[in-house]
Amino acid sequence: MSSLQPRDPAYAERVAASFGRQAVMGVIGASLRRVMPGVVEIALPFRFDLSQQHGFLHAGITTAIVDSACGYAALSLMPAGAGVLTVEFKVNFLAPAAGEQFIARGRVVRAGRIMTVCTGEVAAVSEGDEKAICLMQATMISVTGQPGVQD
Amino acid sequence: MSSLQPRDPAYAERVAASFGRQAVMGVIGASLRRVMPGVVEIALPFRFDLSQQHGFLHAGITTAIVDSACGYAALSLMPAGAGVLTVEFKVNFLAPAAGEQFIARGRVVRAGRIMTVCTGEVAAVSEGDEKAICLMQATMISVTGQPGVQD
Amino acid sequence: MSSLQPRDPAYAERVAASFGRQAVMGVIGASLRRVMPGVVEIALPFRFDLSQQHGFLHAGITTAIVDSACGYAALSLMPAGAGVLTVEFKVNFLAPAAGEQFIARGRVVRAGRIMTVCTGEVAAVSEGDEKAICLMQATMISVTGQPGVQD
Amino acid sequence: MSSLQPRDPAYAERVAASFGRQAVMGVIGASLRRVMPGVVEIALPFRFDLSQQHGFLHAGITTAIVDSACGYAALSLMPAGAGVLTVEFKVNFLAPAAGEQFIARGRVVRAGRIMTVCTGEVAAVSEGDEKAICLMQATMISVTGQPGVQD
Repeated sequence: MSSLQPRDPAYAERVAASFGRQAVMGVIGASLRRVMPGVVEIALPFRFDLSQQHGFLHAGITTAIVDSACGYAALSLMPAGAGVLTVEFKVNFLAPAAGEQFIARGRVVRAGRIMTVCTGEVAAVSEGDEKAICLMQATMISVTGQPGVQD
Repeated sequence: MSSLQPRDPAYAERVAASFGRQAVMGVIGASLRRVMPGVVEIALPFRFDLSQQHGFLHAGITTAIVDSACGYAALSLMPAGAGVLTVEFKVNFLAPAAGEQFIARGRVVRAGRIMTVCTGEVAAVSEGDEKAICLMQATMISVTGQPGVQD
Repeated sequence: MSSLQPRDPAYAERVAASFGRQAVMGVIGASLRRVMPGVVEIALPFRFDLSQQHGFLHAGITTAIVDSACGYAALSLMPAGAGVLTVEFKVNFLAPAAGEQFIARGRVVRAGRIMTVCTGEVAAVSEGDEKAICLMQATMISVTGQPGVQD
Repeated sequence: MSSLQPRDPAYAERVAASFGRQAVMGVIGASLRRVMPGVVEIALPFRFDLSQQHGFLHAGITTAIVDSACGYAALSLMPAGAGVLTVEFKVNFLAPAAGEQFIARGRVVRAGRIMTVCTGEVAAVSEGDEKAICLMQATMISVTGQPGVQD
């Protein structure tokens, strides 16, 4: 049940198509960097207009990319026709979000029939060095038969 | 220690000034709606370009406004010269984020010398009715003497 | 859907019977203090043998009583035949757990068909005064048709 | 700052001595299994009197051992004279806590001067096989100069 075997062979195209429909990812400049069964990475170049009051990336934006990474990691293992929604998550901020680019990584820890538990992290990249700035633990849900909620 | 007495009489102007420096709040169209000792509200009209793949407000944007509301609720009780940073938070999504407008409310539960614990919620407003869509429990930290981190 | 109307008229007896089967509650000396639709309270007198290394009530024991309070608050609104399990929770400790007695209160925020979101708190009672020491945000699940998981 | 170098060469004895003072660990039958810089393991044989209403280990007891494992993983990297307290944690339950024995593992992700972020997990052991049943993300604090809070 918690194996990382995709049940939909077209999982990568499906994740990419759904990501393309997340309007906010385009607005903030995030891109899908890697899709594997149970693992998704999203990249976001720093932009000042996404910052909080001290000039760091806003915690909500950091959270947005790692939430999407975890949600799509979960979706990559869901059967065709299912949609993914976030039930809840918890985030720790390990260091101020300063860097040229941010990489969010989501990973499935346990994929159940209904619920999937993921961990995620965000690394800040500065002059080629990565530093972990954010750690997430999240619960995603697989939704079927709900009009409009399909991925 | 956990009373809601502001230690800085200029707390409201200070919160408003810091909110004005959160570039991302301007970009998404959020505004400060209410500032009281230990309580802050932020309003965000729905915009399609902030949505996730099913057309609901993205969980990261919902989180961004309630994180700012909690952070500023905490700041409203901090002494002059301190800056506020988010240590961690946990969010439950109670219903899909569908509505014309979203109101995030942050409230201090316990204000310590270093750490402040807050609860927050986001309500979706549709045709005048409010519906709770998101619940947050957060830890904020008061930072002093760190260059660049002042509010 | 999120109203606090019990769907099982025998909700109070059912909560009490299930609580009686939680062997660990008897071992630590906890008792059910109050059961109302969507609200449950559990009381625990302090005992040194439940303490951590500084003589305060151990965080795990504090968590145990507020987890049970939240779980039973959720169960009080579930239909007959359903069982309740904890999906996840998050706890903040507001002050050291020092007192003669501890009162855990669980409350339903939103009762869905499958998942219920609760908030909980634990108060320490010393010489008649209550002080909040712990805050919980939790997700409970209603389980049906799973042998052995019925309440 | 986040290296796993112990600042107190006697870290292992110190963790063991503090664990020995956690009265509740003795009552439930938990033992310290492994102490390394930034990593601590605690073992707990199943006992029916620690169970919840369906006969599984109670979520609060599962939480107690992984909270202690994370707290002592954090303490193993703290300077002599400091005490450790739990600020907050979040736990996901991945499967019912059924097994002959439970192993809680705590690990430091980032050790700051004041706060330490840890992840933890609990595995249930049945007939020699381990199965992850619980995942924790926690924040611990280093306390100095507070009478009675020293480890």
